[in-house]
Amino acid sequence: MDTLFSGITAVPLDGRDTVLRDAYVGVTDDKIAYIGDKPPKEKAKRVIPGAHRVLMPGLCNAHTHTPMTLLRGYADDYDLHTWLHEHIFPAEDRMTGDMIYWGTSLALMEMLAGGTTAFTEMYGNMLHVGRAVAESGMKANIAQALMHIGEEEYDVKNDPRFAQTRELVDEYHDYDVGRIRVDVSVHAEYTSTRPVWQEAARYAIDKGLGMNVHLSETREEHEACKERYHGRTPAYLFDAAHVFHVRATAAHCVWVENDDIEIMREMGVTAAHCPVSNAKLACGTANVPLMLERGVNVALGTDGVASNNSHDMFEEMKAAATLNKLARRDPEAVRAADVLRMATRNGYLAQGRAGEGGQIEIGCEADLTMLDFDKPHLTPCHNAVSNLVYAAKGSDVCLTMVRGRILYENGEFLTLDAERVKAEVRKAIGIFA
Amino acid sequence: MDTLFSGITAVPLDGRDTVLRDAYVGVTDDKIAYIGDKPPKEKAKRVIPGAHRVLMPGLCNAHTHTPMTLLRGYADDYDLHTWLHEHIFPAEDRMTGDMIYWGTSLALMEMLAGGTTAFTEMYGNMLHVGRAVAESGMKANIAQALMHIGEEEYDVKNDPRFAQTRELVDEYHDYDVGRIRVDVSVHAEYTSTRPVWQEAARYAIDKGLGMNVHLSETREEHEACKERYHGRTPAYLFDAAHVFHVRATAAHCVWVENDDIEIMREMGVTAAHCPVSNAKLACGTANVPLMLERGVNVALGTDGVASNNSHDMFEEMKAAATLNKLARRDPEAVRAADVLRMATRNGYLAQGRAGEGGQIEIGCEADLTMLDFDKPHLTPCHNAVSNLVYAAKGSDVCLTMVRGRILYENGEFLTLDAERVKAEVRKAIGIFA
Repeated sequence: MDTLFSGITAVPLDGRDTVLRDAYVGVTDDKIAYIGDKPPKEKAKRVIPGAHRVLMPGLCNAHTHTPMTLLRGYADDYDLHTWLHEHIFPAEDRMTGDMIYWGTSLALMEMLAGGTTAFTEMYGNMLHVGRAVAESGMKANIAQALMHIGEEEYDVKNDPRFAQTRELVDEYHDYDVGRIRVDVSVHAEYTSTRPVWQEAARYAIDKGLGMNVHLSETREEHEACKERYHGRTPAYLFDAAHVFHVRATAAHCVWVENDDIEIMREMGVTAAHCPVSNAKLACGTANVPLMLERGVNVALGTDGVASNNSHDMFEEMKAAATLNKLARRDPEAVRAADVLRMATRNGYLAQGRAGEGGQIEIGCEADLTMLDFDKPHLTPCHNAVSNLVYAAKGSDVCLTMVRGRILYENGEFLTLDAERVKAEVRKAIGIFA
Repeated sequence: MDTLFSGITAVPLDGRDTVLRDAYVGVTDDKIAYIGDKPPKEKAKRVIPGAHRVLMPGLCNAHTHTPMTLLRGYADDYDLHTWLHEHIFPAEDRMTGDMIYWGTSLALMEMLAGGTTAFTEMYGNMLHVGRAVAESGMKANIAQALMHIGEEEYDVKNDPRFAQTRELVDEYHDYDVGRIRVDVSVHAEYTSTRPVWQEAARYAIDKGLGMNVHLSETREEHEACKERYHGRTPAYLFDAAHVFHVRATAAHCVWVENDDIEIMREMGVTAAHCPVSNAKLACGTANVPLMLERGVNVALGTDGVASNNSHDMFEEMKAAATLNKLARRDPEAVRAADVLRMATRNGYLAQGRAGEGGQIEIGCEADLTMLDFDKPHLTPCHNAVSNLVYAAKGSDVCLTMVRGRILYENGEFLTLDAERVKAEVRKAIGIFA
């Protein structure tokens, strides 16, 4: 046995809503090998004392754009159009490949320090993202966003983004025995056209890849689509173009309608709920209770930090619970245990990683997060699940492990050069000044 | 000079929306004595290096119930009635004076560790709260909540809570040259009657004390009041009973109407906005943009942690900005700089402490909070105000100072015995099991 968490409070999320007290959780190689209320017979190379510590499955951030850490706080408090067209797009046009690499590395540090073990990424110039993820030891599903704006007819053979998708698949799909997966991505209905959706779907089906899209984030975008396509919604159009014929994640889903939810349920599309970004940009709150009732898999994402401005999944969990209570005027609408599953198991499921994390179960890969609960703001602990969702912060994480390997512990990053990354990012953003 | 913050980024909130870079801020005795872009001539006893540090005015939590830390996570995800009547009230009935002392001490630790220097408190059995605050070095306006539920006529002479109010005033009003102030408190319209409001107002006016009330927190409570009192609102009734004839703070104000806001403006009543608690209990979001437009002083509070479940004013600032954007469907509704003022200056103003904190200005008392911005989630720093509101957490605070005295630094509490407080709280809550 390599690592033993000893006498710890564990929240296994193994299908039962139980909390284990004074538990022993052992890791051998990359897997969880022991769970019990007594120490295992086998000796462990390292024993981690569990007093006032809580062990939970690693968090999965189901929607982000990691290079946008470069734009944290760059443009806040603007309406969406001004924000995107006058600030974000022009800044993104100036990002070099190296900047993307450093921006992503910074995001990985932030995520690891906050207990996130896996994430789902959509951006451009993705080889540089892939390089950073490969080095970090984290799990990720990464995708090059396909777009088609403008008058000319879409020509898949001459689409540089499609070429980048193929290149990304060649380079990083199934990297390190599936630690990185490449998905195909249609950026959104309003930034592309039917031929893009069809080509993307064909390629994903052909290669056995997943799909990652933005869906009905703003009311304006949803209504404009219906106007353009004779009442048809983005979800309907994507489905008709076979975009949902593979394992798919749809981010936001704030304005999806009843029939859209039915399509998502039927096709097994995961909704990546991003409550903080959706609130900050004043888009609205996705109807999570309804999607859960209808049997849609709902996962949780931070979105990029240009609109959040944080990759903290604990903050996102609290926002998911409270904003859905608020939207429904019902404090029972979404409960702590619901969002904890959304932020872990449901995210792993969305990535096609059932059994690769998301729960603490023997045989499952050891993607684990440990928190220090010996702090004033986590005292007392009547209920570990409640404290995790409503009182904990990313900064309470003291250890993050992926496949049995510790990537972050007590402020130290084991795979990333923290000082170098911060220095390179600070240097790089001079370009925006 | 006692302390010099050297080469620091400072957010003075002195009326201009400026950020000072590489600034020097000096503290002599209890006051800010120097602000400049060069070091002062006078030597300081201690120099605190300011690289990647941000100095801001100490935060003022404008509404909380500190002993309720004992009930953090004790009862979540219930509707308000079940929550209060089946869980919170029965638990509160079992709290001893010692429990209140330890619960408050824990809250003070949490607040100090999160950069809060002053707070406004309303609870019962308040002498025990006063004792904890006196020891801590923090500033607070504390109030014993007056109530009158039941059939009998109100008799102020035999009201034990009124007696406790007088006792609290004798013991703690103007304690340590005004570091503690005692306010009078009418708990809420629905938990009391007109004679209580009148007696409370008379006493506050007579003694020159402030007033602290809950106001229109839930729709049900607001509408029931109008039904009971022939269309009159809680704000109207309180005003008519002279409750607002002194410096007053009204917590929540979620359902106040146009005329109520006009009363608040005219009488100088501060609205203590508590967005997280109001969302978690599904009460709604107070219309902060409207209150600000009308010239009402809006401050920011966490409410008790039984309904939040945190005393983190950084979380509260982000919630105030994002939830008001969401409620108005306008990303410009409330900006970062607005909530920063709400969380500092406006809170001090509400406490009758103009000049005692809330800004970094020469001659102002040195109630200061310093944050460590050398962290992944606060990198890069395009805009210190934006990072403070949208990316920082209470746990980024590395130093909290009240009247020039450091009360918290890098995990250490200088006035409170952290281990003892946590141990006593953990022992005390056995009573709820």
